[in-house]
Amino acid sequence: MSPKPMTRPGGRSARVQESVHTAVRDLVSEVGREGLTVPMVAARAGVTPSTIYRRWGDLQELLSDVAVERLRPETDPADLGSLRADLDAWAEQFLDEMASPPGRAYIRDALLGDPDGSNAGRCSAYAAEQIDAVLNRAAVRGERVPDTDLVIDRVVAPIMYRILFRPGKLNTEYARELVANALRQL
Amino acid sequence: MSPKPMTRPGGRSARVQESVHTAVRDLVSEVGREGLTVPMVAARAGVTPSTIYRRWGDLQELLSDVAVERLRPETDPADLGSLRADLDAWAEQFLDEMASPPGRAYIRDALLGDPDGSNAGRCSAYAAEQIDAVLNRAAVRGERVPDTDLVIDRVVAPIMYRILFRPGKLNTEYARELVANALRQL
Repeated sequence: MSPKPMTRPGGRSARVQESVHTAVRDLVSEVGREGLTVPMVAARAGVTPSTIYRRWGDLQELLSDVAVERLRPETDPADLGSLRADLDAWAEQFLDEMASPPGRAYIRDALLGDPDGSNAGRCSAYAAEQIDAVLNRAAVRGERVPDTDLVIDRVVAPIMYRILFRPGKLNTEYARELVANALRQL
Repeated sequence: MSPKPMTRPGGRSARVQESVHTAVRDLVSEVGREGLTVPMVAARAGVTPSTIYRRWGDLQELLSDVAVERLRPETDPADLGSLRADLDAWAEQFLDEMASPPGRAYIRDALLGDPDGSNAGRCSAYAAEQIDAVLNRAAVRGERVPDTDLVIDRVVAPIMYRILFRPGKLNTEYARELVANALRQL
């Protein structure tokens, strides 16, 4: 479930979200995920449990919202001067982050407390925005570029599938092979 | 968690698994997933709740095991006389089954109650076995064939990614585009 209502930066709703998210992150590192309860999060965040239930549904949906927030990219993709270099660098970083133990835990949390798929959709939208930025920059340089959806199918999907379903090589060489396949037909 | 110990067909362990799985499937259709409890499943299956806890862990892990069993293919891939035709047909059927409402629910259940990833690994192994069968048959015919992992990356992964993360076209045309990309470099 997405946080609702939509938050206005600096408004009460945004402050509640910020304090609840911070409480979850702190408590997870203090007592672990297994020990976490909604009343515990509410007490730490200085809100009532019913504020949390009303806005997030239950603990798993709250953990999902926090996980998606952690999966939000913090910087624009690096500009290395060419489409190939930019996509290689982005794919390597994406693979490193997602395949790391915290990345795997966030992906799992994001999917688990997400009955309507909107949090998983936010994860995918973050990746699409980053790829869009790389492709737009390349188009401005005059390079030919593939569709964003094609890059998602050929680079993002295989990485996420291996993380979720199929243990296997998840290294720089693999990221580069996927990018090469995405750029093959240009 | 995988069922343990390993079952011998017709042995007590196999009979327990069969009766518990049947009880879960029947009760899910009678009372829904939300109303399900381990004691309810145990009573219907004629076993003690502790048998279930000992073997499956908790309800979510039991649901995951049942879901993986539902995702097990029941037939060998059709033999249509060529690699391309066989892979097209297999990919279309895989897409149809996984993207259907029951398929989506089973994939979700399989991932949720699966702390160590072994049930997700079984799902992936089922797909790999089917692809292996198609590729081996083509090799016997004298056709050149790609690696199984390449077909998983290029055909299975994008379908599963769209089901889990990114709503979008999941139709026959899409399945064929993915197969074409998997066979492009032969």
